[in-house]
Amino acid sequence: MLSKSRQTYIRSLHQKKYRQQYGAFLVEGTKSVQEVLQSSFEIEALIATEAFYKENVSLTDHQRTPVEIVSVADLQRIGTLESNNGALAVVRTKENRPLVADTGEIVLILDDIRDPGNLGTILRIADWYGVHKILCSETTADVYNPKVISASKGSFTRVQWWYGDIISLLQNSAENTTQPVYGAFLDGADVHTLPFGPGGYLVMGNESNGIRPDLEPFVTQRVTIPRYGDAESLNVGIATAVLLDNWRRVNGR
Amino acid sequence: MLSKSRQTYIRSLHQKKYRQQYGAFLVEGTKSVQEVLQSSFEIEALIATEAFYKENVSLTDHQRTPVEIVSVADLQRIGTLESNNGALAVVRTKENRPLVADTGEIVLILDDIRDPGNLGTILRIADWYGVHKILCSETTADVYNPKVISASKGSFTRVQWWYGDIISLLQNSAENTTQPVYGAFLDGADVHTLPFGPGGYLVMGNESNGIRPDLEPFVTQRVTIPRYGDAESLNVGIATAVLLDNWRRVNGR
Repeated sequence: MLSKSRQTYIRSLHQKKYRQQYGAFLVEGTKSVQEVLQSSFEIEALIATEAFYKENVSLTDHQRTPVEIVSVADLQRIGTLESNNGALAVVRTKENRPLVADTGEIVLILDDIRDPGNLGTILRIADWYGVHKILCSETTADVYNPKVISASKGSFTRVQWWYGDIISLLQNSAENTTQPVYGAFLDGADVHTLPFGPGGYLVMGNESNGIRPDLEPFVTQRVTIPRYGDAESLNVGIATAVLLDNWRRVNGR
Repeated sequence: MLSKSRQTYIRSLHQKKYRQQYGAFLVEGTKSVQEVLQSSFEIEALIATEAFYKENVSLTDHQRTPVEIVSVADLQRIGTLESNNGALAVVRTKENRPLVADTGEIVLILDDIRDPGNLGTILRIADWYGVHKILCSETTADVYNPKVISASKGSFTRVQWWYGDIISLLQNSAENTTQPVYGAFLDGADVHTLPFGPGGYLVMGNESNGIRPDLEPFVTQRVTIPRYGDAESLNVGIATAVLLDNWRRVNGR
């Protein structure tokens, strides 16, 4: 049984304000907790059912993780998931360090992606397509939001991110490098025939408004997913996957 | 102001059981209601705010749609959306008629897709890629679920579906036609290099378990989306989009 103050602390981490204040976030559910225990993240506490703990004791050893055994009811009371009969981990957030694109590397830029489910899906897609770095505008959903972590299906442990001023970053890149910057627009080059280069940036814009006008001048290659029917648009996660799939098809590794 | 019995009737349509009993379903939100008013669906009633009605009166004319004007509060009380300041339509469901694949046509088969959000996204993807027919196993989520309708972003008005025994259907197709049946597996042909034919079936399986073993023998071409990173899998909606994108790239129209 968790003390009242522990419960209050953990529940406060449902909110961005407290995640930032305490430098901690929540990872929930059997699979996600198993993944984070095997990652480079620092675990502050593992709150687990006895069954989870017994089956995963080997994963908790290496960090001398503090473990608290609770009931399923307790677990659901402190977490955000409708059902969780495994575990919840309180994990330290990482420092917001700038990420540098290596030559020939594909780096994602997210300009104001608001929906946590979309952001989580994009982490999972990036992980599938071997994209390890994601640069986010300050207005993009918080990656430490429990919905993002959950939707990423463990991929948050394998992808790095940075939040900051992506316009300055692109400005700097334009002045100092020749990295191409791809961006999705309605009037771009057909991604089915475009000879994608080996690396560069792919900019994905807001769910309703697309890429901000301020950012447009930095896009060196406008791209378009051809449409064969009548839907007005594709979801931003779907579009990210289709664009990365075409890029990888042309430039495998 | 809606009568109590009207409210009860409309709210009963949140549930599949009553949608089937009454042969009606709900379409909610300004854009979706605008789309359904312009479609071939029969509108039983339009419940709208005064603002929505004034702006869209031209759309309600052709069917002599019965209109009831309500407040935003009323609208949200009877619907499923967190916010809706436009309208809600009560719409007649369509007869569950078998769909025949035309020569050279791409038809989707959904085997036990359980999540309404995924099903709605798949309708939208099908609509983008010009796929007009979807055949669903009886265990697939109900297309008339308000979450499916909402996630489809209006595409439910442009795609046809049928629910039934997809194994018998494939058996029958195997005996009488030479339609190829594509299915996603981990050990299939690379979709980046596969010479997709002009038409056929694409089978998408359950979110956790993939395509049922009973169905496997009918798949004539196993396909795989190549992976370049470490994510264990892609969401079924994402996979559907990537597969259709590759198919259309090879066999546009």
